Amino acid sequence: MNLTTASVDTLTQSATELRAQFEAYRQQGLNLDLTRGKPSSDQLTLADDLDGILKGNYTSAGGVDTRNYGGLEGLPELRQLGAEMLGVNTDDILAQGNSSLTLMFLAVLTAKDFGLRGEASAWKHETKIKFLCPVPGYDRHFSICEQLGIEMITVAMTATGPDMDAVEAMVKADSNIKGMWCVPKYSNPTGVVYSDETVQRIAALGNIAGDNFCVFWDNAYAVHDLNEVKPLASISAACATAGTEDSVIQFASTSKITHAGSGVAFIASSKANITGLKKVFGIMSIGPDKVNQLRHIKLIPNYASLLTHMQQHAGLLKPRFASVLSHLDEAFADTDLGQWESVAGGYFVSFDAQPGLAKKIVSMAAELGVKLTPAGATFPYGNDPEDRNIRIAPTVPKLAQVDAAMKVFVLCVKLASIEKALDARRF
Amino acid sequence: MNLTTASVDTLTQSATELRAQFEAYRQQGLNLDLTRGKPSSDQLTLADDLDGILKGNYTSAGGVDTRNYGGLEGLPELRQLGAEMLGVNTDDILAQGNSSLTLMFLAVLTAKDFGLRGEASAWKHETKIKFLCPVPGYDRHFSICEQLGIEMITVAMTATGPDMDAVEAMVKADSNIKGMWCVPKYSNPTGVVYSDETVQRIAALGNIAGDNFCVFWDNAYAVHDLNEVKPLASISAACATAGTEDSVIQFASTSKITHAGSGVAFIASSKANITGLKKVFGIMSIGPDKVNQLRHIKLIPNYASLLTHMQQHAGLLKPRFASVLSHLDEAFADTDLGQWESVAGGYFVSFDAQPGLAKKIVSMAAELGVKLTPAGATFPYGNDPEDRNIRIAPTVPKLAQVDAAMKVFVLCVKLASIEKALDARRF
Repeated sequence: MNLTTASVDTLTQSATELRAQFEAYRQQGLNLDLTRGKPSSDQLTLADDLDGILKGNYTSAGGVDTRNYGGLEGLPELRQLGAEMLGVNTDDILAQGNSSLTLMFLAVLTAKDFGLRGEASAWKHETKIKFLCPVPGYDRHFSICEQLGIEMITVAMTATGPDMDAVEAMVKADSNIKGMWCVPKYSNPTGVVYSDETVQRIAALGNIAGDNFCVFWDNAYAVHDLNEVKPLASISAACATAGTEDSVIQFASTSKITHAGSGVAFIASSKANITGLKKVFGIMSIGPDKVNQLRHIKLIPNYASLLTHMQQHAGLLKPRFASVLSHLDEAFADTDLGQWESVAGGYFVSFDAQPGLAKKIVSMAAELGVKLTPAGATFPYGNDPEDRNIRIAPTVPKLAQVDAAMKVFVLCVKLASIEKALDARRF
Repeated sequence: MNLTTASVDTLTQSATELRAQFEAYRQQGLNLDLTRGKPSSDQLTLADDLDGILKGNYTSAGGVDTRNYGGLEGLPELRQLGAEMLGVNTDDILAQGNSSLTLMFLAVLTAKDFGLRGEASAWKHETKIKFLCPVPGYDRHFSICEQLGIEMITVAMTATGPDMDAVEAMVKADSNIKGMWCVPKYSNPTGVVYSDETVQRIAALGNIAGDNFCVFWDNAYAVHDLNEVKPLASISAACATAGTEDSVIQFASTSKITHAGSGVAFIASSKANITGLKKVFGIMSIGPDKVNQLRHIKLIPNYASLLTHMQQHAGLLKPRFASVLSHLDEAFADTDLGQWESVAGGYFVSFDAQPGLAKKIVSMAAELGVKLTPAGATFPYGNDPEDRNIRIAPTVPKLAQVDAAMKVFVLCVKLASIEKALDARRF
């Protein structure tokens, strides 16, 4: 059905049928949840050998008694694994605690208040601090900016990454733009992998932006491919070429590799930035949980075993994503009711409804017992100016639940769209 | 020997003998370390059952799958144990990651930049922020103040805690004094347990200090008794009586109970403060490592088992402290060469040499291969105005090493003191 060409009668009849289905669903009292990018229980089980894996031996291969204080940089063996994940040198990466989000907060805090490369480099000396935020994006990045009083400016995502013409124009025009958030592989939520050209242009921003500009490169899905391994161009190599090593800080974690709440997080950057970060980390802590780090390197001793482990995750995730995509294809292919991209990895499907309908669709689904991420959450300040983006996170529910939830989602999109079209015709 | 009454000949002869012993030690090439308050390897082994303790079951008694994200407040069962350690309600304490130092940094940061009870309560609105620092004290507390640009004012420690007459006078006179560090039980490094009166007077500071004054109550040695359990008056009860619940934040951890680098840390305060802290923690993290928390509550299921566990630590620590104290008694009782207190718990012996000699003694010991905490470290900005305090940390070395290191220490104190007395007589 094409909403602009269909007759009012056709639309009315459809609306009546859909509304009846809607009410029938209401009677079912569903309780389904497509809200957050969390691993499912069966994914977590893949790493259950972590407990007991040390067999009483808490000493690392390098001879460190992991039980005691110290070792601020993290276990060398684990830093090596992180370095391979992010394509950096082992010296330029730190292995820390259970949350890369914490590392991002601390990195932004350090850059703002203390300076990554000495106090003079701190952003706090500026009258205003602004960040570029590709949208739709990750709500927790935006919350860090809000907490630290950083103004957010949106920039559109394209199929190859952020709109780099717009990004370059903005950082050239405004030296108060000090940072930019990026999820470069399987971007949250669009699933886009940044193209080689995009990676190169982002690495070159340090040469055209104001002083102490820094990209926060959250490579959360570095090895989270559903099918074949999709390569992402190395941002550190591109920075080396551009001479902008200080302008990017990279993050990764094992949260969606081992156990989500008790993994290991990584932070990587230039030697100067790592020195600045270590100074702050050393004030706050006597070192990360090295016992947990040792468990991780025992479970996943090298990059090859990491990729094998990720194939098991992919095996569990693929049917869920296939279900989401087949429901969308079946309902909306060749219609103007919604747009989405096929996904090859990550944790989300990003759906754009017709403008003005995202909040309504999320609210209608909630009426039927299907929880979706709040509309607007993928934009700074929770404000999607077109009110059209909805993030679908299908990893936690079981396959039958994803299927059931997507039926409701499709119904709500159709009903909301047709009722809107009818309203438009009437007035 | 009394240095002021002994003859120059006697002093010279002693100095010659001691110098000969000093040179003989130099030949031995010792390598001993009395620097940091870390558990020894045999203490750490007391908690080695942590790995494998879950036996494949990652679900808490309360039904939480500890492997996944979430649970910002920490596992309820562990919060209950922390609440008993600190004498607070379970609702008023959070169980977090591996470092109470991190929680202290974040609490001070929150109070300064974000406000514990709304943005208007943030200290950043003041022209200057000052903290009271009882001395000698803990160097890492002082580093947090330095990092956050907080001016430190020293106040003397007495045998019952900080000099409260001075403290009360200062907070009354200066509303820019916004905080105070306290290690209320087995204070680092003096070993003092705050008296009931001191606890009450500290709780009452909130009524005479400027707005948003806050005591940072680092109860690091809450259950770290060497002999019988020494009670510390409840600061939260005293605050309830004084109506100053918002003016104290308490900290504790299992770092010196289980494994030093991979324990669990606690933070407790009023409901309003905990709400403010949770807002910031929730921006930085999706939750603490609950798997490690579950391991901890399996190893130490209740307060009674905690006290039993601590008796095993005491058994390992007592001989080391006895060695330190017997060397000091034997060498310096009834002399004016040094002062110290007997200790009943904690991790340190604090030794006051004659004024002007701490740096010299530490440097002389280093010449002989005995590392001591740098002189001055127990004071803000590393500046001991009288240059006399030396912190002795005897927990890590084996008993024979403590004995050997203390022989060197005693020799260095004697030699430095006598050479100084001779210098004074000559001029």
